[in-house]
Amino acid sequence: MDERTGLPIVGMVGAGQLARMTHQAAIPLGQSLRILAESRDDGAALVAADVVVGDYRSLADLRDFAAGCDVLTFDHEHVPNEHVAALAADGVAVHPGAGALCFAQDKAAMRARLAVMGVPVPRWADLSVTGDPVEALAAFGGQVGWPLVLKATRGGYDGKGVWVLDSLDDARRVIAAQTDRARQFGGDRDGGAADSAVALLAEEKVPIVRELAAVVARSPYGQGAAWCVVQTVQRDGVCVEVIAPAPGLARDRADEAQRIALRIAAELGVTGVLAVELFETAQTRPEGGYSGALLVNELAMRPHNSGHWTIEGARTSQFEQHLRAVLDYPLGATTLTAPVVVMANLLGGPDHVHPKGIDERVHHCLARWPDVKIHLYGKGMRPGRKIGHVTVLGRDPVAVRARAQAAADYLVNGDGHG
Amino acid sequence: MDERTGLPIVGMVGAGQLARMTHQAAIPLGQSLRILAESRDDGAALVAADVVVGDYRSLADLRDFAAGCDVLTFDHEHVPNEHVAALAADGVAVHPGAGALCFAQDKAAMRARLAVMGVPVPRWADLSVTGDPVEALAAFGGQVGWPLVLKATRGGYDGKGVWVLDSLDDARRVIAAQTDRARQFGGDRDGGAADSAVALLAEEKVPIVRELAAVVARSPYGQGAAWCVVQTVQRDGVCVEVIAPAPGLARDRADEAQRIALRIAAELGVTGVLAVELFETAQTRPEGGYSGALLVNELAMRPHNSGHWTIEGARTSQFEQHLRAVLDYPLGATTLTAPVVVMANLLGGPDHVHPKGIDERVHHCLARWPDVKIHLYGKGMRPGRKIGHVTVLGRDPVAVRARAQAAADYLVNGDGHG
Repeated sequence: MDERTGLPIVGMVGAGQLARMTHQAAIPLGQSLRILAESRDDGAALVAADVVVGDYRSLADLRDFAAGCDVLTFDHEHVPNEHVAALAADGVAVHPGAGALCFAQDKAAMRARLAVMGVPVPRWADLSVTGDPVEALAAFGGQVGWPLVLKATRGGYDGKGVWVLDSLDDARRVIAAQTDRARQFGGDRDGGAADSAVALLAEEKVPIVRELAAVVARSPYGQGAAWCVVQTVQRDGVCVEVIAPAPGLARDRADEAQRIALRIAAELGVTGVLAVELFETAQTRPEGGYSGALLVNELAMRPHNSGHWTIEGARTSQFEQHLRAVLDYPLGATTLTAPVVVMANLLGGPDHVHPKGIDERVHHCLARWPDVKIHLYGKGMRPGRKIGHVTVLGRDPVAVRARAQAAADYLVNGDGHG
Repeated sequence: MDERTGLPIVGMVGAGQLARMTHQAAIPLGQSLRILAESRDDGAALVAADVVVGDYRSLADLRDFAAGCDVLTFDHEHVPNEHVAALAADGVAVHPGAGALCFAQDKAAMRARLAVMGVPVPRWADLSVTGDPVEALAAFGGQVGWPLVLKATRGGYDGKGVWVLDSLDDARRVIAAQTDRARQFGGDRDGGAADSAVALLAEEKVPIVRELAAVVARSPYGQGAAWCVVQTVQRDGVCVEVIAPAPGLARDRADEAQRIALRIAAELGVTGVLAVELFETAQTRPEGGYSGALLVNELAMRPHNSGHWTIEGARTSQFEQHLRAVLDYPLGATTLTAPVVVMANLLGGPDHVHPKGIDERVHHCLARWPDVKIHLYGKGMRPGRKIGHVTVLGRDPVAVRARAQAAADYLVNGDGHG
């Protein structure tokens, strides 16, 4: 409890843009987010009053940090699950808890769990359970055909740890490289694997129509709330654009996506925001009450890129909702504030030396699009790095998308488009 | 320039709720507001990373603070005008500048200036220019009749420094008390008067229909932007509610109010947000292109309580707009996000000992009104103190007002309504 305000203190492990935007949402709730940062220069550490520098892989650092908090939550999935469990055993209120978080940390565990629930996922095989992953992959490729998708079971994000493979020869190369890398670095980024074994899974390459996301929140009390289902657009495995609501999505398919997400949140015991990334496919293979046209791709148990549009586009943003959930406050209205909302990511271009500084580009962007809302994350420009996003509200999806893309392009590239 | 972000640094003198909400708006712009606070426990100091504790009345402290900033702005009017001028002479970019700010600091200077501009104000008299203020007041009362209004020329806010007087006897008592107080404390809160003289002015008590506010912004470049004209509701001289747009306000009267505000901003050289508080009267006495039905009451050159509704209710909030203005960025769209927006202040009740803590009251408020947006300022409860506000969006002014008032009442008083 913060004696000065009479309100509980929320601690967030990690100080990236999600923590930065969560702090922004914390201010009106009378809160000041307490943040465990890797560095004083992290995006959230630049804007928050209550920042502790420490290592999220260290249980001692996590315990010191948790001691000042009434509830603990996360800006990323990389905190070792056993540390999350240890904190809970200490009596710390952790949201989401270790028992839920493991399904966002381990893609094989997630797929196995969803299969038990009867939630449709692409066909997949865990390559870590048999002796030789290449042999297992050959067998799986024989079943589902090539090309197929190889994924690191743990620690992947933004297209990292995902490979589309055309043949078993391709597979051998990637698996050998990953095994070497694991030997060198002694396990995954999240520290979950202490030995040099590399955990991989294979997945059929689904013929997708497009990608969707169903973002929901669930409170410890058990209340659930869903935003409209959105379309996400990826480039090189990285989300570049989110359109809310997903244009032309059939009502019953949208309902199904929300039902899947709320059910996963409830059955896995998720607290806070849950983002369910989905494939919409042309095929249907009805199963367990689901059409089969929607397949779950990935889960994230935190505010997620596919929900950034909610800051201006929904009555309650995903960041406010995440805070309300982890505080076990009642959840807020998820109503849209405009018929169409589009978010476009600002991704650092291939050339990070720009003739015009970001300040000048912001100036011109605001002049040209007075209604575009800019969000910068306090990061330097670097190729492919998410340095911010823009949000545009309107009526016509085509026009709104064009404005968002043009503004995002201008902010990243300036006049030179290079 | 912040080397880490490539963006200029905005410093704000004062760390109350206006700085707190400005910091919140600074985050998406890639900024982190640099704040000069009186104490680490000030509302804005609780949430911002870059806080300097110092005295806004000390030119040395102001100079030290300004050294780290690219542009300086204010959360209140109490910085001595000569210090603002000295900073500008040092080469600091100060917005608004001393030449504009003096009209928000000195009510007599403001009225004299507006009179020269032909902007309608209530009839008034400066009681400081003659030897005996009581004598001057007697003469003025003879002209405009009693009751009339006495105001401290400098340093008043939220009904403080304003007295409605029924008679010259009343006036004698108030003037004597103020003169004693000035002798004791050696001048006004803002330090503008070093001697014990008390600066007072008298004003006719206008038969008002209601109070309005026209909030606008102006950039150093000269761009102006106006939000819709709002109705403000006062209780005991303190704003309790703001309704946007002002219900039933005739189009030409709304246009006139915006025209008055934009003209004041331009002619006084205001940079940043300007709030013009207006009386709507039943009378009309046309003058210099104005209907005479609108009279200017007060000016504020900073984000203002009558603009808090813009956080959710307008495409660009007054806090973002103030930042854009002081950075000389182009101003943002001021479009409403809903047909009706109502803001209700949370004013500490007469009994500050509540059976339920604020945390529990927030919990129940969010449960009952999932669409109500709560803003808490990080302040303890104290009778009459503005500890936060709520905002509600909707279609029907009567229903939206009722929701906002009920939520505000619940947050302050809890179940007990006491």
